[in-house]
Formats: sequence, C-alpha cells, structure tokens
Amino acid sequence: MDIENLLKEEAKRVNSFLKDILKQYITYPHILYNSMEYSLFAGGKRLRPILLLWTFDMFDDNRQPAYYYAAALEFIHTYSLIHDDLPSMDNDDFRRGKPTNHKVFGEAIAILTGDALLNTAYEIMVNASLKYSDSLKKHLAAQHEIARASGASGIIGGQIVDILSENKEGDSDTLKYIHTHKTGALIKASVRAGAILGGCDEKSLSVLDKYAEYLGLAFQIIDDILDVVSDTEKLGKTVGKDAKTKKLTYPSLFGLQAARDKAVQLTEKSIDQLKYFGDTANVLVALTEYLCKREF
Amino acid sequence: MDIENLLKEEAKRVNSFLKDILKQYITYPHILYNSMEYSLFAGGKRLRPILLLWTFDMFDDNRQPAYYYAAALEFIHTYSLIHDDLPSMDNDDFRRGKPTNHKVFGEAIAILTGDALLNTAYEIMVNASLKYSDSLKKHLAAQHEIARASGASGIIGGQIVDILSENKEGDSDTLKYIHTHKTGALIKASVRAGAILGGCDEKSLSVLDKYAEYLGLAFQIIDDILDVVSDTEKLGKTVGKDAKTKKLTYPSLFGLQAARDKAVQLTEKSIDQLKYFGDTANVLVALTEYLCKREF
Repeated sequence: MDIENLLKEEAKRVNSFLKDILKQYITYPHILYNSMEYSLFAGGKRLRPILLLWTFDMFDDNRQPAYYYAAALEFIHTYSLIHDDLPSMDNDDFRRGKPTNHKVFGEAIAILTGDALLNTAYEIMVNASLKYSDSLKKHLAAQHEIARASGASGIIGGQIVDILSENKEGDSDTLKYIHTHKTGALIKASVRAGAILGGCDEKSLSVLDKYAEYLGLAFQIIDDILDVVSDTEKLGKTVGKDAKTKKLTYPSLFGLQAARDKAVQLTEKSIDQLKYFGDTANVLVALTEYLCKREF
Repeated sequence: MDIENLLKEEAKRVNSFLKDILKQYITYPHILYNSMEYSLFAGGKRLRPILLLWTFDMFDDNRQPAYYYAAALEFIHTYSLIHDDLPSMDNDDFRRGKPTNHKVFGEAIAILTGDALLNTAYEIMVNASLKYSDSLKKHLAAQHEIARASGASGIIGGQIVDILSENKEGDSDTLKYIHTHKTGALIKASVRAGAILGGCDEKSLSVLDKYAEYLGLAFQIIDDILDVVSDTEKLGKTVGKDAKTKKLTYPSLFGLQAARDKAVQLTEKSIDQLKYFGDTANVLVALTEYLCKREF
C-alpha cells in the first residue's frame, strides 16, 4: 500500500473542502479571511481530518456529512496552534517552516483569528446537523466528543497544565495529563467522532477508543523526541525549545532511549487494537505505522 | 412595575444557574475554574441571559431548557470581554470596577480562559440539545443564531473592524458595522434564540428582530456617550478611553447632542415594536426603558 500517496490524495480532498467552507463562512473582514487562510493552509498534514474520515469509511460509504466534522477538527486544531504560539504562551516565531500567525498579522488579529476558527468550527457542525436532520443523534454525539476534547477536559486543560509545568520539577502523572489532554484528546475525538458518525457499535467504539489513546500518546512522545534530535529546518519549527523552557516531556523525564522504547511499544499496542477489524482497518494500520515511523 | 427589583431577582436566578453549570463543567485545572469564575462573577448585569429568558417567557412557560442558552450567552459575552481587554487589543486594566482578567491571572491564562468560556458555551448547548431531544429543531435553530452572532459575522467581525478603525478617519458605514456586529449581534441573538426556543411564529420573530436591532444600537450609543460623560468610578471601567485611542463612536462622529437624540429615538422605535405583543411584552418594555434611561 502506497500510504504516502494515499495521504497526499486525501489531504488534497480535505484542503479543497476547507477552502470551500472558509469562503462560504468568512466573507468579511478581509484581514480575517486572509489570516484564517494563512494558518489553515500553512502546510498541516491534516492528520485529524484524515483519522476521522478513514475511521468513518470503516462503517459508512457516504462521506459527505463526515467532511464537515473533518473540517471542524482542522479549524479547532489550527486555532489551538495559533493561540499556543502567542508571545504570552509558547512564544514561537515559526510553525511548519513559516512565520507564526502573530508574526505576520500581529497579536490582536492572531487572537481573534483563533477565536474565529474555534467559533466557525461550531457553526459548521451546527449547520451540518441542521442539514442532515435524519441522523441528528449521531451528529450531536459527534459534536459532544469534539466539544469535550476541545475544552477544559481536553486541549485547553492540557495547555494550561503544560504552561504551569514549565521550569518546575515535573512528575509522570503531570506529564500523562498534558499528553492525554493537549494532543491526545483531539486525536481520540477524531477517531471517535468518525466512528460515531459512521454508526459504529459500542464494542467497536471501545476498541477504537483504545487504539486512539495509544496512537495519541505515541504521536506526542515522538514529537517530543523530534524536538530534541531533529533540526529546525527539517522540523519546520524551532527545535530544542522544550529544553530551553524546561518543558515537561517524555525524554526530559525518562531520557531519550526510554522515550524511543515507549513510542515503539505504544505504536505496537495501537496497531494490535486494529486487528479486531481485520482488513477493513488496513489503511488505519498503514497510517499508524507511517506516523510512528518518522525518524526518531 | 418595580423593574430594578425584577432584574435583581432574575440576575440572582441566572447567577445560581451559572455557578452550578461552571462547577459541573470545570473541575480541573483549578486556576482555570478560578479564572472563569472571577470573570463570570465580576458584576455583569446578565442583560443577554435576561433578554433571552424574558423573550422565551412570552411564548412558553417551562423555562428549564432556556437556562442553558442563557448561560451559554453569558459565557460567550464574558469570553469576548476578556479577549477585548487584553494588552494587544483594548488594553484595559479595569472592567466593572475590578482588575481585568489578565491583570489578575496573566495574559496566557486570560486567553485560555476566554477560549474555555467560548468552548464551554458550545458544550452546554450541545448537551442541552441531547437532553431535550423532543425539541431538537428549536435547539439547533437557537444554536445557529448564537453561533452566527459570535463569529466573523458578529462579535469577532465587529471587534476586528473596531481595532482597524482606531486612529483613522471613520465614516458612518464603518460605525454602523461595528455597532451592529460588536454588540448588536449578540443582543439580537439573545432575543431571537429566546423566541425560537419558546416556539414563536415567523411574524413575531421578525417583529422581535427589529426590536432587538433598535435596542442593540441604542444600548451601544449610550455606552459610547457614557464613556465621554461619566466618571471612572461610576462606570467601573476606564472612561475617556475612546477619545484617547481615537475610537470611532457615535459621539465622536456626530457630536454628543446628536448621539443623545439618536439614543432616545432608537429606544422609542424599539418600544414601538413591542406594542405588537400587548401586555405580554410589559417586562421587556420596562427593561428597555430602564436600560435606555441610564444617565446620559
């Protein structure tokens, strides 16, 4: 299976949908459109939308409703990156090899662009549920997953604990909280929302839940490793920042080798879960292997 | 009618609901709970929740579902104030007589608190529609109103144009855009969402739409006048700021007397609309008179 090509083709479809929906929702002020477009199309891999769509595909053939949720996830992910990069937070000048939003548009517009991305995500989802009124329950359940993962019990909680843990002695409980909330929650919500929209049964949902949990943790640990071992050019963002700000990460707490071992172990565990679905999960298996085999 | 007392009693009920819902949704991190609580209970008049509830009352007796939307409106309003007050935006140190959120909790937590308030508003509404699944269509239509008013076509669009208009020659079209979007949109959504949740007919909705539009404009013009003529202690926030930052306001564009005349005229027009409903609208009439008779 040529997973790289599959991902490229899928990202193209997601991008085209994102472009259409941005035009539809944001007509004015122009600077807001430009700023949202800048960050939405700054080279993201579309991991969350693709996770949602490929999970959805395992249970349903008609993708149209799922695209709205895929778009909402990318809007939310992009908002969280813009706010995380702000001077008062992680103070990052580069993201995916490009200047961060506030470096281009200034802090005020960057904050409001994040706000607009988050709010538009919900506008998209509310309108999707109005459009597909025959499957409202699935839509609302998917929205519930995404809303929870984006809030205090998800991304925002994770980011706060991450900030508070800087320059402090950390422990493995705090680290686990940061990982499962800051990155893990939305990755899990992508998989769960895709499954729910596709109409999956309870047992499948609980298997996919575990799959996504292992995947999210592996993904974050590898990100932390790359911050230590990669170079800025390759990674497209400032490396070595975690050490400088004394961030609590897996490598900082347990060392590089233990982090690598843990990432491999978690990847294997996540792929193990997918065996329950047999061949239906082949693309998800390939995606997981691909994601977790980034050089580290 | 003792409108001041009615408002006080209603605000108490809203506050008690807000307190319960905050506890229910935010258990951790503690600093997030404290920060959300600080700004939610910093002395707001609960105008938007009360507008929603009193409009709802005109059409339906069972208020329980409406409280969730009243709370969501106050969460959204509070988030927009926290973000507006940030150093990179209006840079305000005081709000309702108290230090602004970022002065107490720092910029990073203030930004994330705003994000959490916005996101929690949607969590509350999604869960409300899951709870009252027999009237889903009304719930989704109310959510649609609130989501639109909070986004690029509402608060966020208004705030961006407001920021861009600082220190520039303004015109009445730009001023109208700022007023109808920055404050007007959410006031209108409060009334419309209340009416929709209550199950009102099309004709009533369009009358209430006009009522809310006039009310929102009158309210904003009076706010602008108070910034010129009131004193900091009375208003609870820094006065004279609009002139200092050369903000585009009704008094700055047309002069104080024209602004006063316009506010009176708009108030009369808004109350005129309510005549359609006869005695049913008595509390809304009293509320409108009260709001627009602040000293100016």
